[in-house]
Amino acid sequence: MSFNTFGRVFRFTTWGESHGPALGAVVDGCPPGLSLGEADIQPFLDKRRPGTSRFTTQRQEPDQVRILSGTFEGRSTGTPISLMIENVDQRSKDYSEVAHAYRPGHADFAYDAKYGFRDYRGGGRSSARETAARVAAGAVARLVIPEVRVRAWVEAIGGDAIDPANFDAEQIDLNPFFCPDAEAARRWETMIDAARKNGSSLGAAIACEATGVPAGWGAPLYAKLDSELAAACMSINAVKGVEIGDGFSAAALRGEDNADAMRPGGAGGPEFLANHAGGIAGGISTGQPVTIRVAFKPTSSILTPVETITRDGAATEIMTKGRHDPCVGIRGAPVVEAMMALVLADQKLLHRAQCG
Amino acid sequence: MSFNTFGRVFRFTTWGESHGPALGAVVDGCPPGLSLGEADIQPFLDKRRPGTSRFTTQRQEPDQVRILSGTFEGRSTGTPISLMIENVDQRSKDYSEVAHAYRPGHADFAYDAKYGFRDYRGGGRSSARETAARVAAGAVARLVIPEVRVRAWVEAIGGDAIDPANFDAEQIDLNPFFCPDAEAARRWETMIDAARKNGSSLGAAIACEATGVPAGWGAPLYAKLDSELAAACMSINAVKGVEIGDGFSAAALRGEDNADAMRPGGAGGPEFLANHAGGIAGGISTGQPVTIRVAFKPTSSILTPVETITRDGAATEIMTKGRHDPCVGIRGAPVVEAMMALVLADQKLLHRAQCG
Amino acid sequence: MSFNTFGRVFRFTTWGESHGPALGAVVDGCPPGLSLGEADIQPFLDKRRPGTSRFTTQRQEPDQVRILSGTFEGRSTGTPISLMIENVDQRSKDYSEVAHAYRPGHADFAYDAKYGFRDYRGGGRSSARETAARVAAGAVARLVIPEVRVRAWVEAIGGDAIDPANFDAEQIDLNPFFCPDAEAARRWETMIDAARKNGSSLGAAIACEATGVPAGWGAPLYAKLDSELAAACMSINAVKGVEIGDGFSAAALRGEDNADAMRPGGAGGPEFLANHAGGIAGGISTGQPVTIRVAFKPTSSILTPVETITRDGAATEIMTKGRHDPCVGIRGAPVVEAMMALVLADQKLLHRAQCG
Amino acid sequence: MSFNTFGRVFRFTTWGESHGPALGAVVDGCPPGLSLGEADIQPFLDKRRPGTSRFTTQRQEPDQVRILSGTFEGRSTGTPISLMIENVDQRSKDYSEVAHAYRPGHADFAYDAKYGFRDYRGGGRSSARETAARVAAGAVARLVIPEVRVRAWVEAIGGDAIDPANFDAEQIDLNPFFCPDAEAARRWETMIDAARKNGSSLGAAIACEATGVPAGWGAPLYAKLDSELAAACMSINAVKGVEIGDGFSAAALRGEDNADAMRPGGAGGPEFLANHAGGIAGGISTGQPVTIRVAFKPTSSILTPVETITRDGAATEIMTKGRHDPCVGIRGAPVVEAMMALVLADQKLLHRAQCG
Repeated sequence: MSFNTFGRVFRFTTWGESHGPALGAVVDGCPPGLSLGEADIQPFLDKRRPGTSRFTTQRQEPDQVRILSGTFEGRSTGTPISLMIENVDQRSKDYSEVAHAYRPGHADFAYDAKYGFRDYRGGGRSSARETAARVAAGAVARLVIPEVRVRAWVEAIGGDAIDPANFDAEQIDLNPFFCPDAEAARRWETMIDAARKNGSSLGAAIACEATGVPAGWGAPLYAKLDSELAAACMSINAVKGVEIGDGFSAAALRGEDNADAMRPGGAGGPEFLANHAGGIAGGISTGQPVTIRVAFKPTSSILTPVETITRDGAATEIMTKGRHDPCVGIRGAPVVEAMMALVLADQKLLHRAQCG
Repeated sequence: MSFNTFGRVFRFTTWGESHGPALGAVVDGCPPGLSLGEADIQPFLDKRRPGTSRFTTQRQEPDQVRILSGTFEGRSTGTPISLMIENVDQRSKDYSEVAHAYRPGHADFAYDAKYGFRDYRGGGRSSARETAARVAAGAVARLVIPEVRVRAWVEAIGGDAIDPANFDAEQIDLNPFFCPDAEAARRWETMIDAARKNGSSLGAAIACEATGVPAGWGAPLYAKLDSELAAACMSINAVKGVEIGDGFSAAALRGEDNADAMRPGGAGGPEFLANHAGGIAGGISTGQPVTIRVAFKPTSSILTPVETITRDGAATEIMTKGRHDPCVGIRGAPVVEAMMALVLADQKLLHRAQCG
Repeated sequence: MSFNTFGRVFRFTTWGESHGPALGAVVDGCPPGLSLGEADIQPFLDKRRPGTSRFTTQRQEPDQVRILSGTFEGRSTGTPISLMIENVDQRSKDYSEVAHAYRPGHADFAYDAKYGFRDYRGGGRSSARETAARVAAGAVARLVIPEVRVRAWVEAIGGDAIDPANFDAEQIDLNPFFCPDAEAARRWETMIDAARKNGSSLGAAIACEATGVPAGWGAPLYAKLDSELAAACMSINAVKGVEIGDGFSAAALRGEDNADAMRPGGAGGPEFLANHAGGIAGGISTGQPVTIRVAFKPTSSILTPVETITRDGAATEIMTKGRHDPCVGIRGAPVVEAMMALVLADQKLLHRAQCG
Repeated sequence: MSFNTFGRVFRFTTWGESHGPALGAVVDGCPPGLSLGEADIQPFLDKRRPGTSRFTTQRQEPDQVRILSGTFEGRSTGTPISLMIENVDQRSKDYSEVAHAYRPGHADFAYDAKYGFRDYRGGGRSSARETAARVAAGAVARLVIPEVRVRAWVEAIGGDAIDPANFDAEQIDLNPFFCPDAEAARRWETMIDAARKNGSSLGAAIACEATGVPAGWGAPLYAKLDSELAAACMSINAVKGVEIGDGFSAAALRGEDNADAMRPGGAGGPEFLANHAGGIAGGISTGQPVTIRVAFKPTSSILTPVETITRDGAATEIMTKGRHDPCVGIRGAPVVEAMMALVLADQKLLHRAQCG
């Protein structure tokens, strides 16, 4: 099946292919009366936009968003908000080879197996370009949760991680890697340049933190906050792993080391002495920062030839020309932020639906 | 919000608390005509059942399932299948202390923050006992996908992993740890005995593999197969991480090392030379085994005293009496299997809905 | 497909067949903290219960409801509420003939065409007995909307309508027909006795009114309040028509006659001078009473022989023995009430989700 | 809440206001490989298009549809199909009065009560203009069900019904009223001219029939075919009643008169001797024509002054200038057709999901 809607009360639906005329999102269920214009959305698209440094794809897309519905006199009306971004820099001729052979690691073979048919230009619907629509929708979601601050950064590239001791939030927006560790940023520059020159690519791990989430959001059991975040992030292209809080590290801990002990805190609530749980217990937020980690595999489009088959089943080799991110995970940071905001906006509304 | 339904076409809804009279699942959307009786479900419940060795909780629950609807003359009718399991060995008096103070790592504080109120007996709805209902539903799901074989095992306990070289599928059912490595099983015996005696607990990593999944199942983009599996597993109690295929390891790879190269295989399809992707590309199955890994945190109920607060916000310490699994991840293996089967059954039906 | 869940935030799922061991409903998304016990539900089941007069089926079912989950110390916890009603008076031998031939007007042929298979005993899942589960769920819904009063009555039987001039709400519970017109009730007694003796059956029209619904509930466009009510009522067995407000009569009106003019009313809101719209404009409640009408066809199970075919396609005649309501619409009144309450409870929660 | 998506597997989401830059629909879950271009959609929009005769609004909208995604080389790819129609003939200045006072019968007051705010220009989101998006989506749905023929007509205007004896399907497209009775069409011409000149408006009843629906589509119990059709039609602006088959007339029948008797027919299936049930039994299609009737209230925008209140609660009178349909039900015919096609396409896919 095709399923392009996410969310339960605050929902969005995305559409569009990499090389079609446009792509977009329809955001539904947004509370009325929020101050909302294109200027509230564009900065987030600009952060994700390709072609801004030599470390991302050289495709030049202004990614200008238009609001086609759902606002009136600068405010949301409560009706569906249609957001559209035109594609302006397609070069579909680059993809002739892809039409006939499957790129390993790409969705090419799987789409053909499912649909018997695919728009091969730029990956069609499976292109990371779709994430622009998420980022636009996510900007609307942020307005629904002004009490929350969402921030993502790149934690590791190609296995080279930041040093937590060097963490400096200010740095995140000062380098092209969303890297909070200035030193790591310098190393990554070299690594990515090398990968690009060798026709290779690198994976990355993204961390994302939401502060200001009050205790009580979440929907046990099958829409647990952890569950919604995992689904949200795993729906992003190239993502293959999600952790909440300590994630896999928690699996190696003893109970007493994993317990987030509590003391009396301000305002009658607890002060937590640790946050192994990533701000979620029993699927419900605890009031601590919600923390997740997301694994992006290396970009599958590489200039290194790889063994593969043609649509007719014959052996061949393929190397993917075209313009690609040497590390798709980097631009994943604003996308993970958007998905976090979208999940939290939905859960905020769901919580007040049930609990008033 | 409370949300206790999972799935899109093949769906199930679970209900019940740890210390209530019963718990159950309603399975809806099941194809008609499947041979289905209690004997098709009971063996899976028996695998998950507590009290069968000294390494799990000593609560004695026969977990006898009854089919209350949806079958006629031994076959599914296509109408909702109601499955009920009675609770017989509650000891609610064990929980008096929990009524007044929050167990760190548990859902106690979060449930109170959300609902202002909770059934504290045995964790109420947030108890791992709920997973019995999933296992029952999962047994029905297996009948929908006879072409698929789903198998989970424990891959690591407390950070001590199996040796892949020792992997022997036969072993999985021969020890109380669902451990495919006989040697590791012996080590774990010691580890868990020690944890139990020390009033501690251990985390675990579960691996699960589904073979026989044809290419083409999955629903890009927001119901990608990876996304559905991640949501399914993250909804299990104590789970804090999910990986598809290489997961976080892929984030450390280069593109050429992560590519699952293809050669012409039998029946016109490809033979893959690797499976870093875990059998899923672009959210759609590739025909390779679908492989996931799931992180279970250590059981939060421990006999070691931990600093916490009371419902009134006063400082106190708590140690959780009652009967608990020293490693809740172990019994997670049949639960992860069930969730894998439930997702795949749903995706099979969704695929034929759209693609015939 | 089988789809046995209704609602969006406040949801319920029903299960069970006419001649199975039990039937039930799982109510999910219920706000926490509501005072809820079996005594809050039983009176509504008692109103719908069969066998209480000679004008309904003689099947003797106590319809005792049990709450199996979702409450603690007499209050809802916010987790799924499982409600179960045991069947005690099945006489499945009555249905041997139905196993082999299709009863015209019944679901027999359609179920076989869909599923290739059916539980023919008492209509299986398509029996009006399923509505007991709705009534139980509806009783929970009422607790969610204490500001609303829902009341249904029978407006016509076999084309013989009440006289609006005789409308007396007190009468509704004083006769076995939920009839607000004492005179009509006397006529109906004779009509139904005659139908029963002749092995015939009669259709009915039910009216239902909800007062106290504040302005603003509803979800344009595809979950308009009218739309939700129509779906809810059309899902009841034997229902073939739904009107909101003036319904089909409005189609014969001129614009100026159909306009619900407004004057300044109390509390800043309008006073409406008419209610042709049935309390809903643009899919959203206006604060006036929400009024609907529902058409029940005559019971299809009749003792008059009707031409039909067997499962093998051969010509035959059938008359339906067993115990049946001569006018299934009568007991439809409490069912329509329940569906009204269920829709309004859901819409109340949805409204506060989006609009706070 | 705002809820602008309809369908379960074959789904569509609409967006756009009457006086915004554009409106559209995103169709998701469409099977791949269907031949689909703008030329497959435009003829249906042309039927619904305003300004084509003096009997509809004089707003001149070409309603040119653009396909922005979801097709490749003239075929559906299985990914979301984005359809956009630009608004070109808004005259928002006509609506200044509406900004301050509520038009009785319109959604003005209800939207304000819900959202505290509304786009009053042309009714904003509650305008019948939204139905263009449904018609576009419906044209896609028709391609999914080539075995089905859907046809709607106007059955009555202002209480003046066609004579069934005069029914001539050819006539439907030969007059501006979708009227199958040439004589009635002549009468309606006079009636509508009169209503228009008097600043009044008329209601209408639409009938719709789908032939070629095989037995077995539908989803008991809460997504019965009747239930889905009722929800679909009640979601259309101005609709206040829906009947399946005989509808309210059935409520006046005796069981033996309402029974659709069966005889052995061709191909092993039954031949039905009547179709009181409208082709649906137990919520599942029987193979007979699916027949529904839909009541449209008279257009609420009239030039006759009506008593109302301002946003501030003061008494006033309003007459609605602007350009309006004197009988919005007429253009409802292609909209009801579209909704019928959309429901049936979804149910076809759902049926093969569960039953293969």
